[in-house]
Amino acid sequence: MASRLYNVTVDCRDPRELARFWSAVLDYKVTYDDGEEVAIETVDEVGPALLFLRAPDSKVVKNRIHFDLAPDDHDAEVERATGLGATRVDIGQHEDEEVTWVVMADPEGNEFCILTPRQD
Amino acid sequence: MASRLYNVTVDCRDPRELARFWSAVLDYKVTYDDGEEVAIETVDEVGPALLFLRAPDSKVVKNRIHFDLAPDDHDAEVERATGLGATRVDIGQHEDEEVTWVVMADPEGNEFCILTPRQD
Repeated sequence: MASRLYNVTVDCRDPRELARFWSAVLDYKVTYDDGEEVAIETVDEVGPALLFLRAPDSKVVKNRIHFDLAPDDHDAEVERATGLGATRVDIGQHEDEEVTWVVMADPEGNEFCILTPRQD
Repeated sequence: MASRLYNVTVDCRDPRELARFWSAVLDYKVTYDDGEEVAIETVDEVGPALLFLRAPDSKVVKNRIHFDLAPDDHDAEVERATGLGATRVDIGQHEDEEVTWVVMADPEGNEFCILTPRQD
């Protein structure tokens, strides 16, 4: 392997606050924090870190890169994420029809999806 | 753990072409492909998949979520990524000064960074 996916980096206004939200959602631990950049990783540090990076620009359109989450219990996780500061958002996904996932946004408006539970 | 990071999903015009690029850059394998959605994962399927999803809208601003890559050899990886279809881009990172990474864009313009080599 020649390059490794090291961070998935999220521009944000408040790195600590957004890292707090995502570490609670995913049960990740903080592995770096200098106030401007906060990294969180799985407890065993497998896979890429999520790095929250303070950025001067604001979110203006729907993100083209988003996180899809596989929950243990779909409805319980939607409720738990809401309690942590997420909101349900409408990006035209027609939740009344064929769609099995729920689209939410994190406290800074970054869209993410809670899927149905997955075995793999 | 209550929710797992299952996919990092990238909206795109051409899922197969973008999956081809990223699987070559990261040495990932294709684990799903229905033409509209193409998933790639590490060879041992550890960590989230990257899911390339055909989307009707176009990229209009700098992405707020991007990939940071840790290379074995920085300059060689910049050259290899270029050969695979990446371009160097200027997002105001002042490469002549303190910055140790190179900002590039994939064939659909999604920004990513090639960092210096990492041991962890």
